[in-house]
Amino acid sequence: MPNYVVGHKIPDSDSICSAIALSYLKTQLGEETVPARLGELSPETLFILDKFGFEQPELKMSYAGESLYIVDHSERTQGPDDIDDATILGIIDHHKLGDITTSTPLECWIRPVGCTNTIIKMMYDFHDVEIPKNIAGAMMCAILSDTVIFKSPTCTTADIKCVEALAEIAGIEDPQALGMEMFKVKSAVEGTPIRDLVMRDFKDFDMNGNLVGIGQLEVIDLAIFDNIKEQLEADIAALKAEGNRHSVLLLLTDIMKEGSEVLVVSDNDDLTEKAYGKASENGRVWLDGVLSRKKQVVPPLQDSLA
Amino acid sequence: MPNYVVGHKIPDSDSICSAIALSYLKTQLGEETVPARLGELSPETLFILDKFGFEQPELKMSYAGESLYIVDHSERTQGPDDIDDATILGIIDHHKLGDITTSTPLECWIRPVGCTNTIIKMMYDFHDVEIPKNIAGAMMCAILSDTVIFKSPTCTTADIKCVEALAEIAGIEDPQALGMEMFKVKSAVEGTPIRDLVMRDFKDFDMNGNLVGIGQLEVIDLAIFDNIKEQLEADIAALKAEGNRHSVLLLLTDIMKEGSEVLVVSDNDDLTEKAYGKASENGRVWLDGVLSRKKQVVPPLQDSLA
Repeated sequence: MPNYVVGHKIPDSDSICSAIALSYLKTQLGEETVPARLGELSPETLFILDKFGFEQPELKMSYAGESLYIVDHSERTQGPDDIDDATILGIIDHHKLGDITTSTPLECWIRPVGCTNTIIKMMYDFHDVEIPKNIAGAMMCAILSDTVIFKSPTCTTADIKCVEALAEIAGIEDPQALGMEMFKVKSAVEGTPIRDLVMRDFKDFDMNGNLVGIGQLEVIDLAIFDNIKEQLEADIAALKAEGNRHSVLLLLTDIMKEGSEVLVVSDNDDLTEKAYGKASENGRVWLDGVLSRKKQVVPPLQDSLA
Repeated sequence: MPNYVVGHKIPDSDSICSAIALSYLKTQLGEETVPARLGELSPETLFILDKFGFEQPELKMSYAGESLYIVDHSERTQGPDDIDDATILGIIDHHKLGDITTSTPLECWIRPVGCTNTIIKMMYDFHDVEIPKNIAGAMMCAILSDTVIFKSPTCTTADIKCVEALAEIAGIEDPQALGMEMFKVKSAVEGTPIRDLVMRDFKDFDMNGNLVGIGQLEVIDLAIFDNIKEQLEADIAALKAEGNRHSVLLLLTDIMKEGSEVLVVSDNDDLTEKAYGKASENGRVWLDGVLSRKKQVVPPLQDSLA
């Protein structure tokens, strides 16, 4: 029976590419390990898999009785529902430390860097295992995605150096051009059902007993939302009611202007004012310079709800 | 304002030596960091500090408003009481993942090895920082202590290699002989108040809502307890009542015979039978081959109380 590597629900490119990269490394080290996923893939992730010749990892929701590595999160709400019945062998992550606990010692590589794949590159180096060209390419794209091509405040020197090293292994001359190509794929919204858009990169957080859902859409030009913004707003209101959530936020992030328009529905009318010092008007607020949910959106909100 | 490194309450040699070793490393990397402790030191730890010329780290119980690294645990019950008001910069540990959470990304080096200092040696190697002779000696002693001179089932190849490397740096020819000298110091009980003995290496665990305290005394010959066993039993019964605990266990570990006599008081009469397959008689049970609280005592107990 193999071990598994699985990222968070509503998988993004980092969750998928790090599952692929870590399972190859562990298998090379003598531990048969396969990547898995907790949901459908985004157009961006499909673009990366296609580009480097990977199949989609197995869709697997239940892990009872299995042993697994968790990547790109350490929150119970984001992991498999039956994680308590599984053995967690390790966690590789770059977020705040969540509420997953274990009953046996494990391996955790958690670093305050921009992307899980930057940490997995450190693991390859530690074990002195060569990274195959196609895995290096996928890891590189995940870092470009998570760091918004190095623009995000979560981006560190380690991420930039890692992309350079992976680009050399993968034989890619202009990583940033490939990053832009990837963000163009990510920016496409036409023909996508509204709910699929809202859920494309959506995470639930337990903030002091309040369930808060935060989605993010990163695009090259916010104008593409002009015709559908009201539909997006209606849908996050529906999501709030369906999930019994305290608040739902949808970040419409303009990676060129480097800021986010936040659509918000909340039990607290002054949610954004308290958390970010700027009141929303009719459920909308522009946060200049805000690109990172993890570093700029979640911590102040968590503090204001504490 | 410096950052701190602090281990668990009722500090053992690993908590203290890893605080010293990590604070030196972080300071070398440009982050002013000082070691601290959450309680009084054991004779074993005082022996190590004396041997390598260290002062006792500062006794510091409150960390509100401070930034700190946590070493040798990740459990709320074992850390500073006001940890929620502090910023946790990182966790270096070799136990199961506990219930500490953070609101910002951090650095975690957690590995299933025998000692935190083995992981800190990896951190020195990663950052390519030279370990001073006296720090290497203290780290080496902590590993010999935690692995019971390599006899514990928690001991890994990484721990043994690490001791060899640290012994060379520290210029110590026979690490195992120094380990035995250290365990002789640890075995001394004469003149020590009973409560001090019980608390010398005592940890509380939250097991599915049940508070369980587990102490351990590792000695070279269990005969030294012959005259005080009834006093120890009376004291763990008192500890159970005082702390409103579900159970208190005291492991009297014979490192030469490689097993532990467990003294137990519990709300469950069949506690050891359910957890370890062996019933206690008059609150005592011999568990052959059991040397490790972390690996052999806690997980089965946690499972049986789940």
